[in-house]
Amino acid sequence: MTTKYLLSEDQVPRRWYNVLGDLKSPPAPVLHPGTHKPVTPDDLAPLFPMALIEQEMSPEREIAIPDEVRNALTAWRPTPMYRAHGLEKAIGTRSHIYYKYEGVSPSGSHKPNTAVPQAYYNAKAGVKRLATETGAGQWGSSIAYAAGLFGLNVTVYMVKISYEQKPYRRSMMQTWGAEVFASPTNRTRAGKQILGKDPHSNGSLGIAISEAVEDAATHDDTKYSLGSVLNHVCMHQTVIGLEAQEQMKLAGEYPDVVIGCHGGGSNFAGIALPFARDKFNGKNVRLLAAEPTSCPTLTKGVYAFDYGDTVGLTPIVKMHTLGHDFMPPGIHAGGLRYHGAAPIISKLLDEKIIEAVAYAQLACFGAAVTFARSEGIIPAPESSHAIKAAIEEAKKGDAEGRSRVILFNLSGHGHFDLAAYDAYVAGKLEDFEYPRDAVAKSMASLPVIQA
Amino acid sequence: MTTKYLLSEDQVPRRWYNVLGDLKSPPAPVLHPGTHKPVTPDDLAPLFPMALIEQEMSPEREIAIPDEVRNALTAWRPTPMYRAHGLEKAIGTRSHIYYKYEGVSPSGSHKPNTAVPQAYYNAKAGVKRLATETGAGQWGSSIAYAAGLFGLNVTVYMVKISYEQKPYRRSMMQTWGAEVFASPTNRTRAGKQILGKDPHSNGSLGIAISEAVEDAATHDDTKYSLGSVLNHVCMHQTVIGLEAQEQMKLAGEYPDVVIGCHGGGSNFAGIALPFARDKFNGKNVRLLAAEPTSCPTLTKGVYAFDYGDTVGLTPIVKMHTLGHDFMPPGIHAGGLRYHGAAPIISKLLDEKIIEAVAYAQLACFGAAVTFARSEGIIPAPESSHAIKAAIEEAKKGDAEGRSRVILFNLSGHGHFDLAAYDAYVAGKLEDFEYPRDAVAKSMASLPVIQA
Repeated sequence: MTTKYLLSEDQVPRRWYNVLGDLKSPPAPVLHPGTHKPVTPDDLAPLFPMALIEQEMSPEREIAIPDEVRNALTAWRPTPMYRAHGLEKAIGTRSHIYYKYEGVSPSGSHKPNTAVPQAYYNAKAGVKRLATETGAGQWGSSIAYAAGLFGLNVTVYMVKISYEQKPYRRSMMQTWGAEVFASPTNRTRAGKQILGKDPHSNGSLGIAISEAVEDAATHDDTKYSLGSVLNHVCMHQTVIGLEAQEQMKLAGEYPDVVIGCHGGGSNFAGIALPFARDKFNGKNVRLLAAEPTSCPTLTKGVYAFDYGDTVGLTPIVKMHTLGHDFMPPGIHAGGLRYHGAAPIISKLLDEKIIEAVAYAQLACFGAAVTFARSEGIIPAPESSHAIKAAIEEAKKGDAEGRSRVILFNLSGHGHFDLAAYDAYVAGKLEDFEYPRDAVAKSMASLPVIQA
Repeated sequence: MTTKYLLSEDQVPRRWYNVLGDLKSPPAPVLHPGTHKPVTPDDLAPLFPMALIEQEMSPEREIAIPDEVRNALTAWRPTPMYRAHGLEKAIGTRSHIYYKYEGVSPSGSHKPNTAVPQAYYNAKAGVKRLATETGAGQWGSSIAYAAGLFGLNVTVYMVKISYEQKPYRRSMMQTWGAEVFASPTNRTRAGKQILGKDPHSNGSLGIAISEAVEDAATHDDTKYSLGSVLNHVCMHQTVIGLEAQEQMKLAGEYPDVVIGCHGGGSNFAGIALPFARDKFNGKNVRLLAAEPTSCPTLTKGVYAFDYGDTVGLTPIVKMHTLGHDFMPPGIHAGGLRYHGAAPIISKLLDEKIIEAVAYAQLACFGAAVTFARSEGIIPAPESSHAIKAAIEEAKKGDAEGRSRVILFNLSGHGHFDLAAYDAYVAGKLEDFEYPRDAVAKSMASLPVIQA
């Protein structure tokens, strides 16, 4: 059984928290992919509306959420926070486990928290169409939904292997009115370049980003939209942690550790950054990012300048990276298969404000099934990494003879991932070793930046 | 854009509304399938725990919801009610359209509202296992979830064609720990009888009911559980309408018409029966059940005594029926493919307390896509019948030059039905004519009851 902590609609945050305003040193500059010089707002103008570029670079600690955005978010926010009594009992821990649940959004994950403001600012700037990429489809479906709210068209470049193997999120995007192409396509130079080398390419998130960026840069009425990694995306997600702070007050506890799964970084940022502010203000709280062992960006990557995409069209940012042409193994947590990490998260890891841990696929599915049977919600494979980390933290507390207060973000439901659960229950799922050779090879692709 | 009407957790109803207490004449007796004599509670004892048998026959207007049940329901209840501003704008109506959204439950539909109390009363009576049937899987997944909460095992007989074509709800049931068999099976005499006639039978809900009933009747530690049709099931669903009445007060309006889709009747009962009480008390409100033209139980069936299952193992009830061996066409709204209707709904239709209307599949999918694009939620194909009816009611109001207040129940999301949306968007979906010949044939199967 669970206990639910609810907020009223007027407790949806009125301001995003911008961690850039609290950093002790400025973030590393973002470099132009051609010149390697720091980019200016004008350099980014073909890709983003100026309001989002300003947010990307703003040093303001708090940024007001426009009424139109806040109203749209209230369609599903505030999201519930639960005390996981059932899970605690199932694993026999004395720790208190809480989870914030973002799966109640229309597309079933945290992604609409940033899709809505991105669509809003683009529509306000007169943009007619958004071009974006998606892997398993969590982001693509979220921007398809949000764009519809503000009358924008959407073109989604969907990684080909997901397009073929996971048709239902594609159907979802199309039902919401988006046009969806299997990437690599013949619609862009980047796509043609990849297909020229390998006509049967399965695609990757890095390739799809290249295509979407090129589409936006070459069409006047079109901008680019990204579902993770960037500062403004991480900031939009802080509504999660800001609400969770109020809900922890209702529960009368404060977390010892705050956990989120980590792919590009926005979900982890969403739950963790408001607690990072507490930490800057002297609170004793651990912030733990949980990633897959098969794509161990934070735990095995280097902190270096790299491209955000495979072809090298995006600006170069300083981040934890496995190399921009790293091809991760085909785990079911498609949202965690990205070679890099948000620069802001990378910097906080480098400064030891946050920690990271990696878990293998089978262990995460085991945790997910335990959770589903004890809490009733079938988690997204991505979110299962946070569940696994929460269970391990609880067990460590038990071993130390003390009860920990643990908060994690359940970033989405697994309704479109049941084929993976099917394979797990049937014993057909396998683990992937840390891809040491592949990482070594892709590390050689890092751009050489003159200091 | 939408407006959301929320209730607090302590506004989850404390009592179910039992319409049996307000009927002017007693319902027709339930007859033993062998003797055709009225059944006694003892006759039903092999199938149900006594607490549910008492609820099935109780004339009490209100029945208290046990604390344990109410606590479990609060995992997702109260569910939100929305004003459909987006849909109103999309169809250009001056009517006010509201919808109650039951898709926020763990299994994504209204079904857990009765699965939870059924699991509770069975566990309390010392039952170890529940046997049940499911078509597309909405019910099976809900009872799998609820049984887990109270430590019961579950065996689900899933209609074979759905088992094969819709594997994800099966995976969901298995993830929650249920055992699932494709029906007809060789585990029961009923299944063997069907397979003897047709080894390649695709199964049907009526056949799966026969198997589950036989399983329960032949195992001492096992009871049967049904997700619709019965009085106690309809009563458990009244939490929907009871909450909606409070939410309409928040909206400051009272509905001219209350709409639910109709398969076995429990979803329609859930939203409509509390408003039927208002109607008994003099309120002017229309109650409209929306069903598929391909399985037109209420609009084309006869009001007669019939079996609930195909083989003839269940008690005989007086209901609107197409004949118990009617095989409906393979529409995607799997939850609306049942030959009969809840006796209580049938009686209210006969007494003109409620109305019924039928819509074809393509028109309903069209309404569903309009809804998804304007309101953001992708509806279950079953629920799309209520949306279609709501749109038509709004248009009739416009034609009369007046604004109607319309409330409908959005009984579930369509996350497991995106293959159907895919087919619709691709123009590959077809309509089925009213199956006049099939109905004529199945009507011949009605049992002959001596007056």
